[in-house]
Amino acid sequence: MTRWKLILEWDGAPFMGWQRQDHGPSVQGALEDAARKLTGEQVTAHASGRTDAGVHALAMAVHVDIAKPLTGHRLAEGLNALLRPHPVAVLSAEPVADDWHARFSCLGRRYLYRIANRRAPLTLDRGRAWRVAKPLNLEAMREAAAHLVGHHDFTTFRSVHCQSDSPVKTLDRLDVEAVGEEIHVHAAARSFLHHQVRSMVGCLGLVGMGQWAPDRMREALEAKDRGALGLNAPAEGLYFAEALYESPDA
Amino acid sequence: MTRWKLILEWDGAPFMGWQRQDHGPSVQGALEDAARKLTGEQVTAHASGRTDAGVHALAMAVHVDIAKPLTGHRLAEGLNALLRPHPVAVLSAEPVADDWHARFSCLGRRYLYRIANRRAPLTLDRGRAWRVAKPLNLEAMREAAAHLVGHHDFTTFRSVHCQSDSPVKTLDRLDVEAVGEEIHVHAAARSFLHHQVRSMVGCLGLVGMGQWAPDRMREALEAKDRGALGLNAPAEGLYFAEALYESPDA
Repeated sequence: MTRWKLILEWDGAPFMGWQRQDHGPSVQGALEDAARKLTGEQVTAHASGRTDAGVHALAMAVHVDIAKPLTGHRLAEGLNALLRPHPVAVLSAEPVADDWHARFSCLGRRYLYRIANRRAPLTLDRGRAWRVAKPLNLEAMREAAAHLVGHHDFTTFRSVHCQSDSPVKTLDRLDVEAVGEEIHVHAAARSFLHHQVRSMVGCLGLVGMGQWAPDRMREALEAKDRGALGLNAPAEGLYFAEALYESPDA
Repeated sequence: MTRWKLILEWDGAPFMGWQRQDHGPSVQGALEDAARKLTGEQVTAHASGRTDAGVHALAMAVHVDIAKPLTGHRLAEGLNALLRPHPVAVLSAEPVADDWHARFSCLGRRYLYRIANRRAPLTLDRGRAWRVAKPLNLEAMREAAAHLVGHHDFTTFRSVHCQSDSPVKTLDRLDVEAVGEEIHVHAAARSFLHHQVRSMVGCLGLVGMGQWAPDRMREALEAKDRGALGLNAPAEGLYFAEALYESPDA
């Protein structure tokens, strides 16, 4: 039995999210079905993080245990052939130690959120970004973001469905960057609460539009109350960007 | 009657191309239908260039004549509202002189071609780039591209359906640029033959893959024979990027 670390990329649009569901397509279901066809084994896939319906992945780390002898190349190519026509691709496959775990060994997660700041509806980037028509104030957004970085009780930015034991998390980074007509928000932490990134970005959007003063973000955080949340940004702008692990040489 | 210059962006996937067709959806048809609904007038749209089925536009210049008094803002917003659910958006609308013509006043066209150089199938960029699995040799592609720049008979790189009077064109620029895992080809000329960019990029791909030596590009050009073409790159990687006009102040 070999444990494989897979890096997956997907378009979240057609999926109910990562987790296997009875009532609709999931990335986990698509991957496990492809692995079963390739190996004849019942394979269970574990991801670094769960993602909601519509959320994309640029590089999600996943592990699977497979008895059939395979090279990483053949595993990736075989899964990719069987994953069609789903918009899910295995970017790489490498063997890891038996106790390596995509979720529990993960030391940090990074998300990207894309805001398209323009009046015109999206065409090529439809379903790939949150379009905000009103010109956004980048400096105000940065000032507001600074209130969230650090060790805090993020209850305000947590979904009622969140299963985390504690609402206290350490947000390492919440950077607001202008990229052409887009604004990219980069969020990094050891782990996030359910809906945390979308909730933080939604409120950053309100600040950028001038509906919230930057200090309102601190007040919302200190309220520790979901009712203080201004806006949950749509799933389609969110990308799971990277899962960090201890380097094998460390 | 006011002549309006519109800048359009679209996802080419669902369209038969720019030109109105009886047998399927076209960008021209979608735009003219929206303009008719907005104004009650029979509006004819003229584009800087025709594009084939599946070809995208980042900024296509188009003109329309409209009698109804409108501001540029209202025209753009009204068209965008009526263009839904088509993936076509009006990025801007400005009044121009009555003798300004999107096609005949155009002094130069610029295209972008995106090649995704990776083994894994595309997910988020499906239909947005030509995936080439074999690692491409950028330097060889640049050497081959240099043979095409300048004033030449481009018969080899011309579709049999091309309606241009002459196969002789001046290619101002054919730059090959690495952008992450992608290779972008930038082509600029006063005008292009039908399929010229896709034909040049297809052969650049063969060079990059090592199937053609860079000099083979010169031989193909000098053959002035469509039979010497190696490969026509797929439409889905091609973007009409810019139409250049004399500045109003010039």
